[in-house]
Amino acid sequence: MPGTPPTRFVYLGPEGTFAEQALRTISAAEHGSRTPARSVPEALDAVRAGDADAALVPLENSIGGAVGVTLDEIVAGESLVITREIVLPVEFVLAARTGTVQESIRTVAAHPQASTQCRGWLGNHLPDAMVVDVLSNGAAAAAAASGEYDAAICAPIGATRHRLTVLADQIADHKDAVTRFVLVSRPGPALPPSGDDVTSLAVYIAHDRVGALLNVLMELAVRGVNLTRIESRPTGEALGRYVFFLDCTGHVCDERLGEALRGLRQVCADVRFLGSYPRHRWGGATGDRPSAPAQGRTDVDYADASAWLARLRTGDLT
Amino acid sequence: MPGTPPTRFVYLGPEGTFAEQALRTISAAEHGSRTPARSVPEALDAVRAGDADAALVPLENSIGGAVGVTLDEIVAGESLVITREIVLPVEFVLAARTGTVQESIRTVAAHPQASTQCRGWLGNHLPDAMVVDVLSNGAAAAAAASGEYDAAICAPIGATRHRLTVLADQIADHKDAVTRFVLVSRPGPALPPSGDDVTSLAVYIAHDRVGALLNVLMELAVRGVNLTRIESRPTGEALGRYVFFLDCTGHVCDERLGEALRGLRQVCADVRFLGSYPRHRWGGATGDRPSAPAQGRTDVDYADASAWLARLRTGDLT
Amino acid sequence: MPGTPPTRFVYLGPEGTFAEQALRTISAAEHGSRTPARSVPEALDAVRAGDADAALVPLENSIGGAVGVTLDEIVAGESLVITREIVLPVEFVLAARTGTVQESIRTVAAHPQASTQCRGWLGNHLPDAMVVDVLSNGAAAAAAASGEYDAAICAPIGATRHRLTVLADQIADHKDAVTRFVLVSRPGPALPPSGDDVTSLAVYIAHDRVGALLNVLMELAVRGVNLTRIESRPTGEALGRYVFFLDCTGHVCDERLGEALRGLRQVCADVRFLGSYPRHRWGGATGDRPSAPAQGRTDVDYADASAWLARLRTGDLT
Amino acid sequence: MPGTPPTRFVYLGPEGTFAEQALRTISAAEHGSRTPARSVPEALDAVRAGDADAALVPLENSIGGAVGVTLDEIVAGESLVITREIVLPVEFVLAARTGTVQESIRTVAAHPQASTQCRGWLGNHLPDAMVVDVLSNGAAAAAAASGEYDAAICAPIGATRHRLTVLADQIADHKDAVTRFVLVSRPGPALPPSGDDVTSLAVYIAHDRVGALLNVLMELAVRGVNLTRIESRPTGEALGRYVFFLDCTGHVCDERLGEALRGLRQVCADVRFLGSYPRHRWGGATGDRPSAPAQGRTDVDYADASAWLARLRTGDLT
Repeated sequence: MPGTPPTRFVYLGPEGTFAEQALRTISAAEHGSRTPARSVPEALDAVRAGDADAALVPLENSIGGAVGVTLDEIVAGESLVITREIVLPVEFVLAARTGTVQESIRTVAAHPQASTQCRGWLGNHLPDAMVVDVLSNGAAAAAAASGEYDAAICAPIGATRHRLTVLADQIADHKDAVTRFVLVSRPGPALPPSGDDVTSLAVYIAHDRVGALLNVLMELAVRGVNLTRIESRPTGEALGRYVFFLDCTGHVCDERLGEALRGLRQVCADVRFLGSYPRHRWGGATGDRPSAPAQGRTDVDYADASAWLARLRTGDLT
Repeated sequence: MPGTPPTRFVYLGPEGTFAEQALRTISAAEHGSRTPARSVPEALDAVRAGDADAALVPLENSIGGAVGVTLDEIVAGESLVITREIVLPVEFVLAARTGTVQESIRTVAAHPQASTQCRGWLGNHLPDAMVVDVLSNGAAAAAAASGEYDAAICAPIGATRHRLTVLADQIADHKDAVTRFVLVSRPGPALPPSGDDVTSLAVYIAHDRVGALLNVLMELAVRGVNLTRIESRPTGEALGRYVFFLDCTGHVCDERLGEALRGLRQVCADVRFLGSYPRHRWGGATGDRPSAPAQGRTDVDYADASAWLARLRTGDLT
Repeated sequence: MPGTPPTRFVYLGPEGTFAEQALRTISAAEHGSRTPARSVPEALDAVRAGDADAALVPLENSIGGAVGVTLDEIVAGESLVITREIVLPVEFVLAARTGTVQESIRTVAAHPQASTQCRGWLGNHLPDAMVVDVLSNGAAAAAAASGEYDAAICAPIGATRHRLTVLADQIADHKDAVTRFVLVSRPGPALPPSGDDVTSLAVYIAHDRVGALLNVLMELAVRGVNLTRIESRPTGEALGRYVFFLDCTGHVCDERLGEALRGLRQVCADVRFLGSYPRHRWGGATGDRPSAPAQGRTDVDYADASAWLARLRTGDLT
Repeated sequence: MPGTPPTRFVYLGPEGTFAEQALRTISAAEHGSRTPARSVPEALDAVRAGDADAALVPLENSIGGAVGVTLDEIVAGESLVITREIVLPVEFVLAARTGTVQESIRTVAAHPQASTQCRGWLGNHLPDAMVVDVLSNGAAAAAAASGEYDAAICAPIGATRHRLTVLADQIADHKDAVTRFVLVSRPGPALPPSGDDVTSLAVYIAHDRVGALLNVLMELAVRGVNLTRIESRPTGEALGRYVFFLDCTGHVCDERLGEALRGLRQVCADVRFLGSYPRHRWGGATGDRPSAPAQGRTDVDYADASAWLARLRTGDLT
C-alpha cells in the first residue's frame, strides 16, 4: 500500500550472495522478512503478485555491465518503480574449509563472471588450480563447504554463511568494482525530492535510429538534464530494435526534468517511468559524480528564466 | 496606459504612402489622431516619450526584405512591444497630372526601391523615360503634382492625396509583393491569446556563432515551435556580431512557447521580447501559412504529455 | 597472413552448441580444422597468439542482447577485426534419450537463457517438470545423454551429437529469435566492398555524456550513415563510463563512411575500427533491413554532390 | 578571361563615395579604367555583359547591415564570383565650401544612413542645423559645393573631389564603423588558397524552416567550419521564404570546406557558390577574428584523422 513502508522483502538468491549483503544495508529489511528468490523474474513477480512489498535485484556492475534480465523483466508486465539504489563494492574473497592451505588448492569453484574478474589474481597466486564454473557465488561457497571443490571465489557473506575461512580477500583485479542494486516496488506517489535524485526511464523509439536517438538526447540536452547511464536492450522483436534505459539527474517533480519527460513523451514511441529516488552516496572514490550543468543551465539560471517569463506575461519588460 | 485603447497614432510619413494606407485599416485609427513622422526613429521616439500611444512602421517587405532601421530602433532604448501586424499588398501605380498621356512621359520620379520593383514594367512600357530617384513614394507623387517630373511611381493613396490620375495600376513585377507593418506601443499586460498568434523576439548570442545559433534553433525545434522569420542585424560593435530577430508561432502565455522562451533566456546572452499578437490574415494567396507541427508536436500531443506527467507525479503509471 | 584464407578455426564450445552450427555454414571451415574453446577470451586469445586463423564467437542475440564478454574482449589487447557475420535462427529443441516419452519427464537440464526463452512452452507442456540450470546448451545435452536428467533444452546440433531423440522442436516462445555470430581475425587489408556492408566500431567518449553522444550521432547523421546497432558497455573504470559499440551501414573504403570515420576520430576520445564485412542475408523475415537514406542522402545524391564540388573547383559554376 | 588580371573596373558611383575610395586601394585598379555605375545592378550587369572585368560594390556595413540590393543582384542571373574583399573604415567628415565656419551652418546635406550614423555628433555640435536627406554621400558633397546647402556629411574622398574644406573629421558616433566591399567577376578557376580565406555561399532551403536551417548549421558545425556571417533575404516569392547568405572560413579547395559544401548540396534546395578569396586584414582593431576551431577540430586534428583513415584502409590498425 503506498505510503506504508515495506516489511516483506524478496531478493535475488541464493543466500550468501551480494544481493543479500546489499539488502541488509537497509534498516527496514533488517527488521522485516527477507526471502531469497531463484531468479530476478521470480523476485519481481512476487512484488507484482503482492506476495512481497519490495524486491532487491542487481541492475548493473561496473565490470560486467547491465544485468539484462533485470532490465527486461522490469518493463515486462505491470508497472514497477525503483524506490532506492544501493551501490555495493564487489569484494571477492578466496574461501575454503578451515584447515585448507592455499598451496594445496587444486580446484576452485566460481561463477564465470567472478572468475573473469579475478583472472589476474588467479594467474599469479593459483596458476595451476583448475577453475570450475558454477551457477552463482553462493553455489560456489556451498560447493567448497561440501568438499566438492577445494575452494570458492565468493562474497564475504557467502564465506560467513557457509563457515568458510577467508584465505585471501580483495582478490578482484579491479579494486574499485561495484554493483548497483535497486529496490523495486509497486507504483505509488513519488517520493519527495531529496535534492540529489536519479530518475530512471525506458524509452522506445521507432524507425530510423540515428535521428530518433538524436531527438531523445536533444530533449535532455536542451533542458540541461544530465544522462548518467544509457543502455540499449533488444525489444525481442528483431535484431536492430531497441529499448533504451536511461538514468537522468533530477526528480519527476522537478520542473526541469518534468519538461524533459514531457518532451520525450512526444518524440518517443513509448516512455516508461521507472522511478525517481535518491542517489546513493557510497564511500568509494570511484563513481563519477554527475557533471556540473552547462553554462546557463544551473538551477539558479532555471529559476531566473522562470521568473523572467512570469514577468513578461504581466507586461513587465524591465 | 495599459488596457486603454490607443487614440493618438503616429506613422512613418510623409502622407500618402503605404504606411498611412496601412494605418487606416485600423478602425481605432480612423477615429483617433494620425500624425506622420519624418522617420522611423521619430515615430518610435514619440511613443517612448508618451507623445503618441502607438506607432505604425514598416517591418519587412517581401521584395526588399527587412526594414533595418525599424529593427534597430525597436531594440534601442526603452522596451516597446508590437501589438498588431498589418500585411498590405504593395500596389504601385503610375500616376500623373490629369491630362498627361503615357506616350508623352519623359521623366518618372520614384523611390529607388519602387523603381527596382517595377523595372520590368518600365522597360516594356516606358523604355525611353528617365527614372529619377527621390526619397519616398509620397515625395514622388508630390513631385509629379508640382510638375517637376512628368509622372510618379507611388501608392494608390499617394495618387489620391495629390489628385493625380492613375495611368496604370499593378505595375510591380511581382504581383504578390506585400509589406508587413507593425503597430508598436509601450509595454503592458499581454493581449490574451487569439488562437493564431505570432511572437517576435530579438536574441543576442555570444562568441562562436555556429554553435550558438544551433542552440537557439534547437530550443525552438524541441518544443515544436515554428520559426516564420529570421533576420540578422549587426549589433554595431563590429563586423560579425549580430542580433537575430525571430518570429515564432504561438503566444507568450502558451505553455509551449513559454518553455521555449525560458530555454532561450538560458542559452542566449540576451533575449528581448517584442510582443505576442494575432497573425494578420490578409486576402492574398501568397503568404506561407505556418507549417503543421512535426509528428508528436501538435497541441493535442502537448496536452497529452502534460496530462501524462501530472499522472506520473501522483504515482499513476497506468 | 593477410590474403591467405583461414584454415584453422576456433569457436566458442563446447561441441554441439549454436556456435559450432554457425561455423559449419562456412565452407572453408568445413574443410579446415575446428577447435572448440572453453570461453570467448580463450577463442580470441588463440587468434591473437597465432594459434588459430579465425574465431567464431557470438555477438548478440535478438532476445538476450549483446554478448558482453565478446564486446569486452574484442577491444582488450591487440587489434582484431570482424571479417564475416552469420545470423542463425535460434531453434531450441526438447531432446531426450531414445525411448523417453514426454509425459514421463520430471527434470529438464537447460542453460538459464535457454529456459527463459522457452518459458511459455515449458509452462504449457511440462508444467510439473523441474528445470535445472546448467552452464551451456551443450552441457544440457550431455547431461540428458548421461541420464543425469530426463531431458535437455538444446540446439539441434547438440541432440545430434549426443544421439538424443528430438521430442519437440521450435519450442522457443519467440519463433523469430536469432543469434548473430562473427568471425574474427588478425587485421589485414580491408575486404573489398560488397555493395551491402556493415562496419563495426567501438567509440570512447569523454566527460559530459549527453553532449558527447549527441556529437557522435551527428557525425553519422549528417553523412546519411545509418546506425543499425548501438550497445554501451562499461569501460570498467567506474560506473557511468562507457564505450559504445556501433554497427553502421557502409564500408571503410566508401567515401561517405570514410568521412564519418574521420569525423568520429576528431570528436571521440578514441575510435577502434572493428571491421567492414558483408551483411549476412539470412532466410528469416525478421531482421530489420537498414532504412533507406533520408532525402538528399542516397548514393546518387552523394555522387552528384561530389561531381558538383569538382566542377566548382575548376571554376565551372553552370 | 580567367587568369587574365582585370583591367576594366566598374564601381558603385557616383564619384567621390566610399566605393571609389575602396577601389583605389587595389593597385590593378589604379592602373586600369574606373567607371562609376549608377546602381549596383548596373555595375554587376556590366560585368555579366563583358563590358567590365570586375565590379566593386558594397556588401555590408557594420552599422547599417547587409546591402540588400547587392545580395539580391549577385544571385539573380548568370553566376558571378567574389574574388576579393576590402574592409574600409567609415570616416565621415563634415565638409563645406572654403570660408564657411561651423557656427554659420544652417543646412546639412546627408544620405539618411550617414546622418543616422552621425546623429550624436550632430546633436552636440549642430543642434539647430536642419539635416536634408539626399540620395548619396557623393550627392551631399556636390550639393554643398554648389551652394544648395551649407555643408555636407560625406567621405573624405568626396570632400577632396568637390574641393570642400573639412570642418570636422571622424564625426560618426561609432568610431569603429566599417564597410565591407567586394570585387566581383565572371567565374573562373578558383584562386589558390592563401591560408586565410573566406568562402561565400547563398543557400536556399525548403519548407520547415527550423529544421532546415538546423541542418545547414550542423553540416558546418560537424566539420569545424566557422560561420562569420549569416544574412537572410526574402526570395521575393512570399513573406517567409528566404535565401541565406553565409560567409565561412576556408577555401573551396580545402578538404574540410569541400566536405561541408558537398553536405550542403545534399540538404539544401539549392546552393550557390559565390567565391573563395583571401580575408582582408585591415588595420582596425574592431573586427572579430574567426574563433579558434573547437577541440579536435584544428587543421592538425583533421590531417591526423585523414592519415588514420588511410591506414585503416590498408589494414594497419596500430
